[in-house]
Amino acid sequence: MLAECLIPTTAPQTTLARVVEFFVEAQERFGAARAFGIGSFGPIDLDPGSPTYGRLLRTPKPGWAGADVRQALIERFERPVAIDTDVNAAALAEAEHGAGRGLRSLAYVTVGTGIGGGVIHDGRTRYGSTHPEMGHIVVRRDPRDGGFAGVCPFHGDCLEGLASGPAIQARWGAPLDSLAARSDALDIIGGYLAQLVVSIALLTACERIVIGGGVMTDGALLPRIREAASRFISGYLPVARGDPTLEGYLVPPALGERSGIIGAALLAQRMR
Amino acid sequence: MLAECLIPTTAPQTTLARVVEFFVEAQERFGAARAFGIGSFGPIDLDPGSPTYGRLLRTPKPGWAGADVRQALIERFERPVAIDTDVNAAALAEAEHGAGRGLRSLAYVTVGTGIGGGVIHDGRTRYGSTHPEMGHIVVRRDPRDGGFAGVCPFHGDCLEGLASGPAIQARWGAPLDSLAARSDALDIIGGYLAQLVVSIALLTACERIVIGGGVMTDGALLPRIREAASRFISGYLPVARGDPTLEGYLVPPALGERSGIIGAALLAQRMR
Repeated sequence: MLAECLIPTTAPQTTLARVVEFFVEAQERFGAARAFGIGSFGPIDLDPGSPTYGRLLRTPKPGWAGADVRQALIERFERPVAIDTDVNAAALAEAEHGAGRGLRSLAYVTVGTGIGGGVIHDGRTRYGSTHPEMGHIVVRRDPRDGGFAGVCPFHGDCLEGLASGPAIQARWGAPLDSLAARSDALDIIGGYLAQLVVSIALLTACERIVIGGGVMTDGALLPRIREAASRFISGYLPVARGDPTLEGYLVPPALGERSGIIGAALLAQRMR
Repeated sequence: MLAECLIPTTAPQTTLARVVEFFVEAQERFGAARAFGIGSFGPIDLDPGSPTYGRLLRTPKPGWAGADVRQALIERFERPVAIDTDVNAAALAEAEHGAGRGLRSLAYVTVGTGIGGGVIHDGRTRYGSTHPEMGHIVVRRDPRDGGFAGVCPFHGDCLEGLASGPAIQARWGAPLDSLAARSDALDIIGGYLAQLVVSIALLTACERIVIGGGVMTDGALLPRIREAASRFISGYLPVARGDPTLEGYLVPPALGERSGIIGAALLAQRMR
């Protein structure tokens, strides 16, 4: 890694101008880039045959709907620019250089401001017509959580509406690690996230699931998710056979917070 | 299609002996087969690197656990034998010659004695280390259905435990189409099946979902699933954009009951 920087996400033009500026400077120091790779927040149109390929779709981020992140780089540098979601990029990095090394399939889930996930098989990040939106699955409600309406602007109490960082904040007024009724909260949130783990395992049969993101920095949460997922799976799932506690099946990221940026670099590498 | 026959599933040796017999006679009439394709009930070990590749895994069908369906044909005919699950085979047939023609991705769900599904992308039927087991996802319970424990021997009230044919029979003592409280029952079952539809759409981003099987022969059920899935999705999902009622997104099989057998033939074709 030759250079990196953190640019806050403000308006698209301001933000993208600073991205371009970073690369102008970096190329002065290190030579011309042969390709660019972008791991962006979504939703993005990832269908190469679509007229809006590479553009952001409807998003609550002000000004970003319709923004063409890729085009800003193409216009300035005239080089190939790969784009995928941040979470698909992170999944790719974990699959190739992190917790999925040696496996053919891996899922990556991030639990933070939102909940998202990507699935890699044989190095591919995409299968259907676009990226997954798995944070919005319907989950069975925990009776101890009754009455909380959820915070998802689209669905109310989908998984993201119940178990994302903002959902936890809205429900209890604080992050998980500072709660008085902490054990119950960990159980409730762990039970919701476990349902995504179970669905990924049952629908994709992937060999391992990596779970990271801001909410997961509370280290007490992962064991609760494993417990609940293991209860749901009940020894049924071939992928988790010989691993009843899921300690090898459901793991933290091996690349920590760097999986997204490493994944974007891998996307660029593939474009050369 | 040159010849077909229906052999009841009894003990593995009896059943497989009759399968071999069928092919001996068919080859006398039509010439030697160049390859065989099997679409079998699961769970099957589909990892070509595994010592138990092609064998049935734990199954409630007496005598079938460990049975090697593929080997019976290889030994007798010394030809390549492809194997996949019945539902993956059906998904392949629908993708290539049925409701998925012209698309790159398709999911196929069957709702009958059990609930299963397969996802096809670019002609591939498998991604993870094995086939999906999506019938066993956790679903949010309908309050009108309170108290019913579900019939899944592994999970009780997973989707299959609540919405399969045997579950409907256990819950109401009759199939859907003969129930007095029919409208409520259709709503409850439709709401459960819709959650699988939503999860497939969100996790795989596939372009269309085909839903068939014995329970779906009650034509009143599909519209209820569409209604409930559309409510859950709430206009969020790019795959269903421009199709708010999901009439183009969630469809019956185009090949009817023949999708499985056509899929098995396609598997064989690929082995030649």
